[in-house]
Amino acid sequence: MAGNSFGEIFRITTFGESHGAAIGLVIDGCVAGMPLDLAFIRHQLARRRPGQSSITSQRRESDEFEVLSGLYNGKTTGSPLAFIIRNEDQKPADYDHLKTAFRPSHADFTYFKKYGTRDVAGGGRSSARETAARVIAGAVAMQVLKKSGIKIYAFVSQVGNIMLDKQVTESKVREIDKNAVRCPDKSTAEKMISLIESIRKDGDTIGGVVSGVITRAEAGLGEPVYDKLQADLAKAMMSINAAHGFDYGSGFDGVRMKGSEHNDVFVKRGKKITTLTNRSGGIQGGISNGEDIYFRVAFKPVSTIMKDQQTVDESGKKILIKGKGRHDPCVVPRAVPIVESMAAVVVLDHFLRNKTIQY
Amino acid sequence: MAGNSFGEIFRITTFGESHGAAIGLVIDGCVAGMPLDLAFIRHQLARRRPGQSSITSQRRESDEFEVLSGLYNGKTTGSPLAFIIRNEDQKPADYDHLKTAFRPSHADFTYFKKYGTRDVAGGGRSSARETAARVIAGAVAMQVLKKSGIKIYAFVSQVGNIMLDKQVTESKVREIDKNAVRCPDKSTAEKMISLIESIRKDGDTIGGVVSGVITRAEAGLGEPVYDKLQADLAKAMMSINAAHGFDYGSGFDGVRMKGSEHNDVFVKRGKKITTLTNRSGGIQGGISNGEDIYFRVAFKPVSTIMKDQQTVDESGKKILIKGKGRHDPCVVPRAVPIVESMAAVVVLDHFLRNKTIQY
Amino acid sequence: MAGNSFGEIFRITTFGESHGAAIGLVIDGCVAGMPLDLAFIRHQLARRRPGQSSITSQRRESDEFEVLSGLYNGKTTGSPLAFIIRNEDQKPADYDHLKTAFRPSHADFTYFKKYGTRDVAGGGRSSARETAARVIAGAVAMQVLKKSGIKIYAFVSQVGNIMLDKQVTESKVREIDKNAVRCPDKSTAEKMISLIESIRKDGDTIGGVVSGVITRAEAGLGEPVYDKLQADLAKAMMSINAAHGFDYGSGFDGVRMKGSEHNDVFVKRGKKITTLTNRSGGIQGGISNGEDIYFRVAFKPVSTIMKDQQTVDESGKKILIKGKGRHDPCVVPRAVPIVESMAAVVVLDHFLRNKTIQY
Amino acid sequence: MAGNSFGEIFRITTFGESHGAAIGLVIDGCVAGMPLDLAFIRHQLARRRPGQSSITSQRRESDEFEVLSGLYNGKTTGSPLAFIIRNEDQKPADYDHLKTAFRPSHADFTYFKKYGTRDVAGGGRSSARETAARVIAGAVAMQVLKKSGIKIYAFVSQVGNIMLDKQVTESKVREIDKNAVRCPDKSTAEKMISLIESIRKDGDTIGGVVSGVITRAEAGLGEPVYDKLQADLAKAMMSINAAHGFDYGSGFDGVRMKGSEHNDVFVKRGKKITTLTNRSGGIQGGISNGEDIYFRVAFKPVSTIMKDQQTVDESGKKILIKGKGRHDPCVVPRAVPIVESMAAVVVLDHFLRNKTIQY
Repeated sequence: MAGNSFGEIFRITTFGESHGAAIGLVIDGCVAGMPLDLAFIRHQLARRRPGQSSITSQRRESDEFEVLSGLYNGKTTGSPLAFIIRNEDQKPADYDHLKTAFRPSHADFTYFKKYGTRDVAGGGRSSARETAARVIAGAVAMQVLKKSGIKIYAFVSQVGNIMLDKQVTESKVREIDKNAVRCPDKSTAEKMISLIESIRKDGDTIGGVVSGVITRAEAGLGEPVYDKLQADLAKAMMSINAAHGFDYGSGFDGVRMKGSEHNDVFVKRGKKITTLTNRSGGIQGGISNGEDIYFRVAFKPVSTIMKDQQTVDESGKKILIKGKGRHDPCVVPRAVPIVESMAAVVVLDHFLRNKTIQY
Repeated sequence: MAGNSFGEIFRITTFGESHGAAIGLVIDGCVAGMPLDLAFIRHQLARRRPGQSSITSQRRESDEFEVLSGLYNGKTTGSPLAFIIRNEDQKPADYDHLKTAFRPSHADFTYFKKYGTRDVAGGGRSSARETAARVIAGAVAMQVLKKSGIKIYAFVSQVGNIMLDKQVTESKVREIDKNAVRCPDKSTAEKMISLIESIRKDGDTIGGVVSGVITRAEAGLGEPVYDKLQADLAKAMMSINAAHGFDYGSGFDGVRMKGSEHNDVFVKRGKKITTLTNRSGGIQGGISNGEDIYFRVAFKPVSTIMKDQQTVDESGKKILIKGKGRHDPCVVPRAVPIVESMAAVVVLDHFLRNKTIQY
Repeated sequence: MAGNSFGEIFRITTFGESHGAAIGLVIDGCVAGMPLDLAFIRHQLARRRPGQSSITSQRRESDEFEVLSGLYNGKTTGSPLAFIIRNEDQKPADYDHLKTAFRPSHADFTYFKKYGTRDVAGGGRSSARETAARVIAGAVAMQVLKKSGIKIYAFVSQVGNIMLDKQVTESKVREIDKNAVRCPDKSTAEKMISLIESIRKDGDTIGGVVSGVITRAEAGLGEPVYDKLQADLAKAMMSINAAHGFDYGSGFDGVRMKGSEHNDVFVKRGKKITTLTNRSGGIQGGISNGEDIYFRVAFKPVSTIMKDQQTVDESGKKILIKGKGRHDPCVVPRAVPIVESMAAVVVLDHFLRNKTIQY
Repeated sequence: MAGNSFGEIFRITTFGESHGAAIGLVIDGCVAGMPLDLAFIRHQLARRRPGQSSITSQRRESDEFEVLSGLYNGKTTGSPLAFIIRNEDQKPADYDHLKTAFRPSHADFTYFKKYGTRDVAGGGRSSARETAARVIAGAVAMQVLKKSGIKIYAFVSQVGNIMLDKQVTESKVREIDKNAVRCPDKSTAEKMISLIESIRKDGDTIGGVVSGVITRAEAGLGEPVYDKLQADLAKAMMSINAAHGFDYGSGFDGVRMKGSEHNDVFVKRGKKITTLTNRSGGIQGGISNGEDIYFRVAFKPVSTIMKDQQTVDESGKKILIKGKGRHDPCVVPRAVPIVESMAAVVVLDHFLRNKTIQY
């Protein structure tokens, strides 16, 4: 059983490899009769696109999509929504020198072991290009969620050793896209950008953290005991290329706390029962409690570097590979819309699932 | 669509609430004709059982299981394996004072919001008692994996601020169970134990980290792009009660590294292609590469504390609740077999899935 | 991937073999907060039970069930509902002579080939005893559907060559259980009964047809293009032991008709758009249209006969087996509640699925 | 949860509506490294194509497909295979008169009720054009099955009252495509063709039956108790447009038989245990037994007729609609490759599932 689908009710399936004709997305289970804002999809894709700033890959990559089905007179029909993005800008010659090499920390070796094939040019199915399909899916999901008032945003909270040490309130959301690194604090953003630029000049790469927030989600989302909301968020995030860690609420830092410090006290505010603190990250017992849901995703440094590296080829022979091409020195600025998108897919799926338990 | 099943081919479904007659487990998709070692299942359950040491809850909890189906003359039949554990030691009176209170950071509030019910006595379905079913499932999965040589172990690597700062090699595995906290380094274990004891005396609780290792897994496990091995491990771990974070390989620490430091160089050792370092944590592109797979799970401090806490009841009225009962001051020693079990279920499921892509 | 679950949202999993401790059922995804009428479940089980009349097996079979979870103060909790029925009345000695024989048209041979095991006593997992779990599931589903006014009934419409040649309107439903064969027409029922009795005296068995009707289902149930309502009904019915055929609406007879005769003309009656005829069987394009949904299930004659039969054993040696035990001469009277139950599970599942496509 | 996917391990998802840009297919879970014969896919599509003979619709319909992904150097990569067929030949004007009418026995009414939309031009998602995607999927599945020697064929066994009364042995397979109706008996085929032609001249339509055969399937395919092989075959067949009935082995006729006549006696022939007769249709207890698997699918007469018909529009107003366009007088000749294809998808899926139960 292969793994190219995600979600139970709002179910996305993606396809496509960097060397093929197109990448694509099928959404089965999107609500019927919803006006679909294609401009918003394009807006989100633009935030993911390479070449958008000096700190991302300068690769040109088309992401003009075509809607193949599921839309009629501007509204969803309830039948599968299908989108494709044609592949262009392939320069297989760029990869000739890698035909048999296993690039360090890439997927070359494991794909070869599992499938017996090499998808060298651009990474084949393991290429991050697949995430464009996720961004489309997320942009559709966000539009469905809009009706219920649920909003989702993400931002960069760490690059290398530089960490954002301020709380990000909703009022700061509009700051996120004001700089190339997508960190909503100007001075921290500047430090991150200059770090990335120095790393890039050195032909190297650096890791980072994207933080995500889901606001105004109703209490009740999440399906114990295996499909807890945090479990599905974790899976969604850890399925993104280069993601190496996930936590929510107090996360790894909460480990150091005592229960008496960590517990979120319930209080009544107006007509609503709420919590004084939110170390639970908006989720208790696997179910949203109506507070903000927040989480972090750790990304490793990009494996493709512009430096010489030692490795072996298929026969096990030692070879030296030289970095070429146009790659990202740090993945997190472009990962922001991908994290938002996967969060939207998870939340919408759980929103629809939650409908079915009500008598 | 409810969420009480996990896995695609080796599929487990658990049921049962703390107030009901029994908890149970159905495994659908276990291989046929395998001798099943019930003593090993009992051994693993004993490692999860409350009351096993001075630093765990002193609650008595029966975990004698009955096999209802799927076993014939000591071998699996290929039909569903079903197990139940009867509930005993229920003292609903213990919970009378909580009938309408929402305990801070418990699932009372969210279950009430989602299902409209209160399962006060022992936590209902949100009770950690459900994890006994997971341990049985894991003990079955480990037996299937044994044939392929795959081994799984976990240990405590952090309690509060005390961290294990040594590498744990396979030779250290037998040290894990030599102390009550399940940390394979004696002096660190002693510090952890004395911290937990002081926390317990204070009526408080503390968080911790469990580290897991999967050894001798063949290259090829994991199903891109959504069911990457790390994605399913993350989901499995984040579905465990009190888990707040997951990372694998270099994890959150890898964020601070450069690509040139982080990349794992391939070399040939004997007939095998292997890597010099293993910051990838045994997984590249979502697929195991034959190296050790290692990961961490962060657990928050247990919510039930023996101190007075402020909260509200269903009507929103402020009330003071007083800790009662016999609870764990720190969840990680008993979480070790649960982490191992969920890892085994994930790895076996992917092992079986990987069989189906071969031509 | 094994096949012991059915349904997507209202998802049932059954377990248990005739030689084991118990058979059982887990329902995941039942609505929360619904009062559960256990007496109604018992009523449906009584209609399936062996020994209920002179034309069914005289085997005694306990079907007293225990609710293990999912119920609290008489209401569903939203967590998995689990039921078990203990096995009794096992007489493995009855089966000693069959230890290595492959009984003609039984599952002995195929289970042996697939699983490498023989579950001789009572048929193992292939035993029709499993259908008791289906009847419990159906009785729960019917209670959920009651709120929407949807009703489901079935009856025997053919035994051997004796066919019911009258339309069965809803007013006839109360006639169904007035005779042992569950045919709502008294004179046809008498003929069927006397046929079955003569077959039984002869130590033989005979086939039959059960017809099912679903009334007051809203328009909109069914999920094109693969999970059409008739497709899921077909699967559900064909998964019942001994079922050999399924059709709905005009079915196999419709093959002989012209389009101009077969088409159901739409008319307005009061405020409702309805059809003049109903050869579509209440389903068009895979979706219910608000008319009665009706279908037929063909059952082959029971394989166990009280006559000597030639066969081979595991080594391929010719042997003669002699019928023993207490078996049904015709399966259809007891299949009626099973057909109703599977229909209820399908309809409820689609009812819940249909909720999720609405914007 | 929508229903546009089929299969568990070899999983197909189709999309596309008659009014949109394209229809398409994604196969997730196809084995890796298999050479894919595109000419064979084209061959199967040609057998489904309208306009292939005087007794099918004269509509021109492009079915030239493009492979978007999953294929590299002529071999499957193990990643999703995606195919699209562009829509052409749309004449929405043809449908203007139907904009608000509910055509008798079409899906107009039910789609409108479920999704709130009208996909008039060509039937939208309910269009039989979707079956071209199924034929591609089936042609891929057949190529995978070839390695195991499993073969699948189908033929027309009834049109209206004209029935093929001869057994079709494998040697007759090559006769199937020698006539326009795909009945392997020449004289019966001629009668069927002249019936269809007279029906067509009259502007009417007629029903029919397609019979399917699966040969050389190993014993062991099928997953009790819900995913029995016949249950999944039934679902697959009943999901085809216009299918109204399914039976296998003795089917509806077996109802009239006694157990002593119906039972298939086991004998040893050479080294193989086989059965003297095959009323079980190659399936016992839901699992293939190594004999030929055979089944029938009943198709109703096509709803679109060239005669005036009474109906109502969305407001409930009576209107008269007049048949237009180029439609099939009888669906069965073109249904033959569709039946074969769905059978291939089911058998391959179960073949792969069966691999996972082996220890």
